Amino acid sequence: MIAEILSTGDEIRSGAVIDSNSAHIAEKLEEAGLEVVRHSCVGDDPDRIEAVLKDIGGRADVAVVTGGLGPTTDDLTSEAAAKAAGADLALDDMALRSVTDFFEKRKYPMSRSNEKQTMLPKGAKCIYNPVGTAPGFMLKIDQCLFFFLPGVPFEMKRMLSEGVLPEIRKLQQDDRRIFMVKTISTFGLGESIAGEQVANLTEEFPGIRLGLRAKFPEIQIKLYADGEDEKVLTEQIGKAAEWVLQRMGKWVFSVDGASMEMAVGELLNRKKATVAVAESCTGGLISHSLTNVAGSSDYFLFSGVTYSNEAKMRVLGVSPDTLRQYGAVHEETAKEMAEGVRRVAGSTYGLSTTGIAGPGGGTDEKPVGTVCIGLAGPDGVRARRFHFSFGRRSMNKTIFAVTALNMLRKELLI
Amino acid sequence: MIAEILSTGDEIRSGAVIDSNSAHIAEKLEEAGLEVVRHSCVGDDPDRIEAVLKDIGGRADVAVVTGGLGPTTDDLTSEAAAKAAGADLALDDMALRSVTDFFEKRKYPMSRSNEKQTMLPKGAKCIYNPVGTAPGFMLKIDQCLFFFLPGVPFEMKRMLSEGVLPEIRKLQQDDRRIFMVKTISTFGLGESIAGEQVANLTEEFPGIRLGLRAKFPEIQIKLYADGEDEKVLTEQIGKAAEWVLQRMGKWVFSVDGASMEMAVGELLNRKKATVAVAESCTGGLISHSLTNVAGSSDYFLFSGVTYSNEAKMRVLGVSPDTLRQYGAVHEETAKEMAEGVRRVAGSTYGLSTTGIAGPGGGTDEKPVGTVCIGLAGPDGVRARRFHFSFGRRSMNKTIFAVTALNMLRKELLI
Repeated sequence: MIAEILSTGDEIRSGAVIDSNSAHIAEKLEEAGLEVVRHSCVGDDPDRIEAVLKDIGGRADVAVVTGGLGPTTDDLTSEAAAKAAGADLALDDMALRSVTDFFEKRKYPMSRSNEKQTMLPKGAKCIYNPVGTAPGFMLKIDQCLFFFLPGVPFEMKRMLSEGVLPEIRKLQQDDRRIFMVKTISTFGLGESIAGEQVANLTEEFPGIRLGLRAKFPEIQIKLYADGEDEKVLTEQIGKAAEWVLQRMGKWVFSVDGASMEMAVGELLNRKKATVAVAESCTGGLISHSLTNVAGSSDYFLFSGVTYSNEAKMRVLGVSPDTLRQYGAVHEETAKEMAEGVRRVAGSTYGLSTTGIAGPGGGTDEKPVGTVCIGLAGPDGVRARRFHFSFGRRSMNKTIFAVTALNMLRKELLI
Repeated sequence: MIAEILSTGDEIRSGAVIDSNSAHIAEKLEEAGLEVVRHSCVGDDPDRIEAVLKDIGGRADVAVVTGGLGPTTDDLTSEAAAKAAGADLALDDMALRSVTDFFEKRKYPMSRSNEKQTMLPKGAKCIYNPVGTAPGFMLKIDQCLFFFLPGVPFEMKRMLSEGVLPEIRKLQQDDRRIFMVKTISTFGLGESIAGEQVANLTEEFPGIRLGLRAKFPEIQIKLYADGEDEKVLTEQIGKAAEWVLQRMGKWVFSVDGASMEMAVGELLNRKKATVAVAESCTGGLISHSLTNVAGSSDYFLFSGVTYSNEAKMRVLGVSPDTLRQYGAVHEETAKEMAEGVRRVAGSTYGLSTTGIAGPGGGTDEKPVGTVCIGLAGPDGVRARRFHFSFGRRSMNKTIFAVTALNMLRKELLI
């Protein structure tokens, strides 16, 4: 089945907001076995929304539309959808319940402007919104079944998984196909080299479709399978994953879509170990990443973002002699930072970064993109130097941070 | 003039990568005075690219297309563009120079696969790429002038500003209009309330167009003006900005598009002051934000991400009694953290956060979304408690961090 995605709203059309909804929807629809062929975006203009709905209606089998279901006068999607379908708007009982439930649960008074949200095109089927005021709906326009959802990301995600994907599975039941996807996340190889490593997977496993996805700085290897027998598919995809792991094991950090910081957190939890971080050039990004994981307070104790040499000495106890002799960006300094932060925090592991994120501060000997990473643990301390050539500060911070976390991850695997 | 934007590539179509290019291009085109009406995205499929190019060619005056100009076999945009224009591909001298310059400057050998990038549709005009291998080009298809750029964001941005916008200005010269935009960034008001505050701006200044843009957690007020006399426009837009500042002054943190961390950095630089941060619930995000600004090492000395009480005591010298009596999330603890980090780092200011980002850890008295922010400086120390109700961990971390930076910003204004 051919699918399209449409986002509506002036904030996306004008570039004020980056459209992350469409990527999420595309990923979920592809995982469900649909072929997503086009995304579109138009602003809060009812004529343009109607026109693009009609275009899509003539091309796709299924479409997901986000935005324009709010209570204000520039929320015009229901109206445009009704026009495109040649229907009128009418009060919908389930939409009314979705809106009133929201206000009753929160003991807020319902505003008059929300009444608008209870009106759906005749012939539409309401999609209940458990977390916001805007009910969604499904509606056939021309040959295509449209799912209309609010643009607020967490409302959209909840309704997509609870209200849309089950309906799509029902549509697919006629041909009783099951869709599976397995995500293997790697770090340390470029996309083209990773691609070469697994290039003949489809020869070995003709039933498996291979996808390569670069989410800087990681490369995800995605395995897709579809068929009629769940047990056969599980076995097929499992064997293919095994084959990938044999070729790529060293570079793989998760087999369930988990991020690097989630993978590290899980290993720390499993080993009942704790970590503290001494960050110079990563400027807090390692701690920010680690603490983005809910429950990280179980294993993350402390990070010292020691930009100045003064702070490196005072907080981490780095020796003035080391800084004088080797400079701030050096393996010896990284080692003392890692040991220092481990001692200060009383953690199992101490992880440190010191380097040059740019744009300034580079020298011939230590150009922008140089980083020294230190790791102290129960078995002692070591440090390694890396050079990256991404040039941009934000990319350097990111690759430095992930490289450091990966060094800790490997240590935790021993 | 009506503009459209097209991004190509399977990684965006399938949702593996979020399309940030289109938002950037939309913003720049709107600032240049074009009316961006639609974005589209299709995958690496030459027939679908050709079809969408023809669609756009029949609707828009100007279009910017990204992606598919690389050296590999799935980079098919030039071919599809040639077909859509009914032209053949031919070696282009400037494209050849763009590609060979790139390799010569870097002293890399040029690979055979890059030869493909020197072939443009006949009738196209090359857009030089100063930072990558893929030359862009401009080409008329049907009634629309297309600009084709590579999908790599930093290459695209550079070529958009150096190769595309000047051409668009030339097109506009026939009606000799000048376009101006002024961005006033506010924090602390919701979008609807901010909107009410400035609602009758267009009555007072009929020549100014008003735009409101939510970039969580800030709200940008954008003033657009266009006309023939630059001096008149500068005066008009200046007066309108003055009017906005009078109404919104308290909430405004920058008038040049600068982020909160840039605004704080500039004030610290101007006052020759330094800052150190003690972060609990923000988990390193404040330091990460501050150090995203190039040159931040001039004023940012240290951040202690003290998740554990142990670290709060050991590194920042928070008293065990305070922690026992008030708990970790309290104004008194925030004060001692701010004083402690200021003392440890020897900085002019100490800024601290302690709170509950969620999803767990909330109580009736201190629900998820509670944060205490401490600020220590030459004039003493104070702390404030805030409650936010965003529910999600990442949004809470963000709003906590920006609220803390804003508290420092206000202090620096005194």
